[in-house]
Order: sequence, then C-alpha cells, then structure tokens
Amino acid sequence: MKIKRVRVTPIAFRDAPLLNASGIHEPFALRSIIEVEGDNGHIGLGESYGDAPVLAVLQAMQDSLVGLDAFDLNGLRARVIQTVARLGPVQAGAELAPGSHPSKQVANAYSAFEVAFLDLQARSLGLPLVDLLGGAVRTEVPFSAYLFFKYAKHIDAPYAPDSWGEALSEEQIVAQAARMIEAHGFQSIKLKAGALEPEHEVACIKALKKAFPDHPLRIDPNGNWSLDTALRMAELLGDDLQYYEDPTPGLEGMAELHERTGMLLATNMVVTDFEEFRRSVALNSVQIILADHHYWGGLRDTQALARMCDTFGLGLSMHSNSHLGISLMAMAHVAAAVPNLTYACDTHYPWQEEDEEVIKGGKLPIRNGCVSITRAPGLGVELDQDQLAKLHEQYLSIDIRSRDDARQMRKYDPAWTIRKPRF
Amino acid sequence: MKIKRVRVTPIAFRDAPLLNASGIHEPFALRSIIEVEGDNGHIGLGESYGDAPVLAVLQAMQDSLVGLDAFDLNGLRARVIQTVARLGPVQAGAELAPGSHPSKQVANAYSAFEVAFLDLQARSLGLPLVDLLGGAVRTEVPFSAYLFFKYAKHIDAPYAPDSWGEALSEEQIVAQAARMIEAHGFQSIKLKAGALEPEHEVACIKALKKAFPDHPLRIDPNGNWSLDTALRMAELLGDDLQYYEDPTPGLEGMAELHERTGMLLATNMVVTDFEEFRRSVALNSVQIILADHHYWGGLRDTQALARMCDTFGLGLSMHSNSHLGISLMAMAHVAAAVPNLTYACDTHYPWQEEDEEVIKGGKLPIRNGCVSITRAPGLGVELDQDQLAKLHEQYLSIDIRSRDDARQMRKYDPAWTIRKPRF
Repeated sequence: MKIKRVRVTPIAFRDAPLLNASGIHEPFALRSIIEVEGDNGHIGLGESYGDAPVLAVLQAMQDSLVGLDAFDLNGLRARVIQTVARLGPVQAGAELAPGSHPSKQVANAYSAFEVAFLDLQARSLGLPLVDLLGGAVRTEVPFSAYLFFKYAKHIDAPYAPDSWGEALSEEQIVAQAARMIEAHGFQSIKLKAGALEPEHEVACIKALKKAFPDHPLRIDPNGNWSLDTALRMAELLGDDLQYYEDPTPGLEGMAELHERTGMLLATNMVVTDFEEFRRSVALNSVQIILADHHYWGGLRDTQALARMCDTFGLGLSMHSNSHLGISLMAMAHVAAAVPNLTYACDTHYPWQEEDEEVIKGGKLPIRNGCVSITRAPGLGVELDQDQLAKLHEQYLSIDIRSRDDARQMRKYDPAWTIRKPRF
Repeated sequence: MKIKRVRVTPIAFRDAPLLNASGIHEPFALRSIIEVEGDNGHIGLGESYGDAPVLAVLQAMQDSLVGLDAFDLNGLRARVIQTVARLGPVQAGAELAPGSHPSKQVANAYSAFEVAFLDLQARSLGLPLVDLLGGAVRTEVPFSAYLFFKYAKHIDAPYAPDSWGEALSEEQIVAQAARMIEAHGFQSIKLKAGALEPEHEVACIKALKKAFPDHPLRIDPNGNWSLDTALRMAELLGDDLQYYEDPTPGLEGMAELHERTGMLLATNMVVTDFEEFRRSVALNSVQIILADHHYWGGLRDTQALARMCDTFGLGLSMHSNSHLGISLMAMAHVAAAVPNLTYACDTHYPWQEEDEEVIKGGKLPIRNGCVSITRAPGLGVELDQDQLAKLHEQYLSIDIRSRDDARQMRKYDPAWTIRKPRF
C-alpha cells in the first residue's frame, strides 16, 4: 500500500499557567496533527510537537512521503534524514520538550510519521495497533496524577481562567491531587517541582504522603537543584518517594547523587537518546528511564529502548508534554505491548480542556488511573475535522510559534532568566 | 486471526564430515520444521534445532498454541515460559548449537514459533515478512563462504561420500574456497578452525589471502585456543583478518585479547543473550556480535539486538548452524531489515545436499554471495510435503537424537574428549 497524501496541521489549545523550572506554561500549547492517507483510503494519525523547528521538518516531509510504501519504515527514516540534511540546522527549541532539540530533528520527525504509518498499517489490516507491536500484555495502561504548582490565571488573561484555581501551598496541592484522583482514580502521584523553594516543594510531598499514604510519590525538579540541594532534599524526603526524577542536572551529577544516596533516580532529561543511554550505563547515572516515543524514534524504537532497559536492569516509565488524545493512545498502545513497563506513565492529559480535543467523541476517559486499549483498528480513535479546523484557526490567531516558558515568565517578572540549577 | 493447528516435525538430512573444536559433524543433522496454521487457512513456517531437548519443548507447545491470536507474540512468549516451567530442566545440548542450551529453552522455543507466527501474519496480509520488520534496506543479503576442514567421507559410511572430498591441507582449503566462490560468488571467506594445529590453520588463512587477496577473511577457532595461543596466532595473522572470531574462551579472555592486540573480535559463543551482552559491554570483550535469531529470541529480538549493537558501537553479522531454506529465508528477511548489518552473514547452506531441501523448488540460489528477498508473501518459500515426509522418515531411521560431535569423533579416536581450549 502506497502513501497517497500527507497532511501536517499545526494546532493550538489552551494550556494552564503551570509553573516549572524554566518559568510558566504559555496560555496556548502547540501540537502538530499528522494525517497519512494510503491508496486504499485508510488514514493513519499521528501527533507531535508544534514548535516551529519541528513543524518545519514535518511540513517539508509531506510531499516526499507520497508514493512510499506504508510498511517501509526504513524508507521513512531515510527520507527524514535526507530532509533534515536539506533543511540544515535550526535553532534550539524549548528545553523541556526534548524532541524539539536540533539534535533530535531526525528522531522526532521520524517518530511523528512512524506512529501515523503504523496506525495506517493497522487500520488497513483491521487490527489494533498494539497487535503490530507484539500484542497487549495489558489492556489497562496505568498513568499517574501529574500535579503542578500553578497560578489561578494567565497574566495576559486571553480567556476565562481554568477551573483548577491557584496551587502554591501544601493545602492547594493536596486539593489538586484529591480532585485529580477523584476524577480519574490515579494510583500514583507525580509533583512537578523545581519552581518554588525546594524546602516548600518537599513539604508538599510530605503533605501528599500524609493525605495519600498508599499512593507512590514522585517529585520532578527538572534538574533545577544543585547536587548539594538535591542531597539536602534527599535527606528531608527520606523514603517518601517511589523515585526521584531529574533532581539535578547532568549524567555525572545524577551518578554522584545515586552513589551517595542509593535513591532510585529517574530521567527524561539526561537520557533522551540511545547515545546518552550508553553513557548513562557506563556511569550508572539513572535507574529508571522515562521513555517518550515522540523523541526516542517512535513506537518500535520505544520497544527497543524497553528491551535495553530490561537488559541493563533499568526501570521504565513514560514522559509527557502537553498533548491530546492521539498521543495518549500512541503512548497507551506501546505501553500495552511492553512487558517491563515498571511504573505508571506520566500524562498532562487531565489539564486539557474538555472542548479542545481533536478526536471524535471528545476527551478519552482515564478510569482507575488507566487508559483502556480496545480491539478497534489502529490507535482506536478518529479525527474530528471540525475540531481540527477550530484548533488550527486558534493556532493562526495567536503569535506563539515555539514554546518558551521563560519568555512567558518575564511577563510576570521582567528580570526572569533561566538559571540551571536555580536552587 | 486465531491459530488453528500447529505441527512440529523433526527431520534429518545428510551432513558432511566437517571438523571443528568439539570433534566432527555426524552423518546427519537434525532440524525441526514448524507449521502454524491460522483459521484463515494460511500456514506460517519455521525451522529450528532438532535436538531432543529443544524438540521436547517445541512439541509440548503444539496444543497450547491453538486458539492464540497469531499477532499475540507476547502471549506466545508467556505460553513458552509456562511450558518450559512445566517440563522442568533438561540436559545440555551441543555446545556449538547455543540454542540447545537449557538456559536458552525459552528463547529458542519462542524464536522457532515467532518466525512461524510472523510468516503467518505476513502471508495472511499478502506482505513479504520483511515489511512487518520495517521494510527492506537491502534486497540482496550478503553471505560469506564458510570453509571447513573435513574428511573425504564419514567413518561409518552410511551413504555415498559428498562431492567435496578431503580438505586438510592449504591446497585443499584453497580449492574448497575456489569451488564455493565459483558456485555462489561469495565476496568474503570464513574458515572454521580450532580443529587442527593452530599454526597450520593460520597457514591456511595465509594461503587463502594469497589466492583471494580481495576477499575479507575470518577465522573461527570456536574458543579452542588458549589466550597465549590466540596471542601467538594474532602475531602470525597480522592484518590478514577482517575479524577474529571466538579465538579464545570467555568474556575475560576475549577482553584481554582485544586489549593486547587491538584486533576486532567477533563472537557467537561468549555473547549469546542479552545478559551476556550487558557483561560484554562492561568488559569490552567483543566488537562484533554474530546474531542468530534461533536463540536470540526471533526476528524482532534480533532487531532489538541490532539496535543495541548500534547503540554500543558494535558491529553485526550472523551465525549459522546446519540448516535448510526456511532458516535461510528467516535470516535473510531480518538481515534485510537491519540497517547496521555490517558484515556478510555466515551460512552452512552450501554444504546441504541438493535433494534434501524441504521447500518447493529445491535449494535456494545464492548468487554474487547474496540471497535475494522478493515481494512474495511471508518468507517467500513453500513447504514441500513430500520432502518433509522423506526427511522425517530419515529422522526415524537413524538413532541420532541430539547432536554430539565429540561422540562422533570417538569413532575415529576412542580417546577423544572435549578439552577447551585444546591448543
């Protein structure tokens, strides 16, 4: 089956004022929606970053894929490599979206289309995508509650505030967790940190521990703590954590932290490709990899990564950026096929507004903390063209073209700069 | 699509009196031919070891696979694990067929059926198997001429001697190479060693170098040289080799040999599973892995291994035992899908007699040293039921049930024992 048509559509959807190590989320998050149509009329779907450098590659790929066999993933990779070489170097994207780094241009463009190709294959064959990945070892894929410190509304107030309200204090974070768990039944909790004073962030973990004593807890300062701070916080945290995610920057810093504390360290920042995996193994920097098919090279390479984690005795979970339902289902299908998914995955999905999903039927349910895999063909979701058009119009109506959480924070604090580690 | 019927048929075919580190090939080689029929009437093919311990697992699996979805490779693995646990420990198989080791029971039984499942999937979909592996990066898969020291005939003379004659001297080895290259156009040459005096084996490499100066050369003593001998032979070999395959036993010995000589070392003996891969990386024992889907866990795990080789900067080639056309095509399809196949693969196929192939049309051609991948569905070969019946009858007519090259050598030399390293 040959590819007949490829369409890449940038979209924007409302995003909450969530705080992190770089600054604060902008009022809109960007994504690309990928449609790959086969000559049999089936359409495969993909979703990836919408930042300008990534979008440039994805859009440049569109015509070059016409005529390619939908099963020829090696051919897809070759064409991505050619296109990236032709376009030349691009400027760096946001640090917290590793897939938008120039070094990841090939991997992220390949990933975006690989999912759509696999979805097209599976739909054409009448099979759920997971069947092309070896079949489901689980049909309920566990995710964790992903908590953020946040303001009540965006400073530029481009739309009515979200319903979550402010979350800065211990009480507010516990309330956020309670609401998210009540709504979705999450069995574990992750707190995005690196935004406020470390001692306060640790106090919030303590408050969560008290409120949810049976929920495994994780904290993720996004490498914004010095090694000394990370060591000091480790002391305070004791054995409250399931794992300690990217507390301090660098493979060397993480290796020293692990050696001195024995704590399980997780990352989506210092091991983001196979080369860094190799270096991490040599240093014993991390014990858990947060995979992300958007920049690791798609679903098959995520499976290869999982095999590698198994080989080298590493745990496996999944990283997330702000995303919609196509990405959620892609994550769920590959997670369903990976025997050694040792921890619940991350997802920003609960933060997305009800009226801004691009798939038919609106937002997917997360029940008992899990996303369900069905026997529906492909990813199991259909594109809502009206919603796609609406979110594309929204993209055209705003001036954000690349995520920049520091720029946004400068609207609150003109002196704000990215300093790593800040604490 | 559900599995309707599974059939595992042990067969025996004539094998030449080839010398190696353990002794000498017996007059018959054993294989298992696997047929997996889907409820759509399509049949997937597999080929694996025929030794009793492996055969016992494969046959015990037959009924347990009925009703399983043909895409559920994770379910297949789970059933293999259950069956192996139920059967309990078995005795060790032949050392030179790593897939027959007890530690490989799960991997080798899984591999045997995985190929048949993938073949069934691909035939049902009307696709060549390579398409389910990401598509072909090459349609001509290179193999090397695989030379052996050998006697003119088997001591027990169960049938007329093969046409290759004796090969013990430099001249005879050069003649063997010339005939094999003339017949198949091989572009590289491997000499199985570890059988005669090391100095003589190295002299044969020198003679090959003189006769075929443009053909990359490899020597494989199957770990039968001490580290001192391997060092001494390395000195004699100079830069005559493309790589030095398993000269000396053990990950530690290989690591020291590499450190002291800088030579590229290849293996199918010290890195035979993912755990050994991990240990080899830590020691820098080898620089090239000879993959073998029969014991690495099938075609998909061979792809994972290839990804791992790429990650850790290792070269990749393929190992072979005596085999027929189904295994040859399985090797060719996965080799076709692996971008980083850095060396021509090994194959015993030229040693197999013309009248003993189980696939329709007889032996597959090897031209310009390559096996061709076509667009025919699945593995691209069909089973010849008459030939299968004939080779199964032959299996029933002999008393070999597990390969034992040392037992065979004791017919020539009653005092023969396996000593490693012998030299």
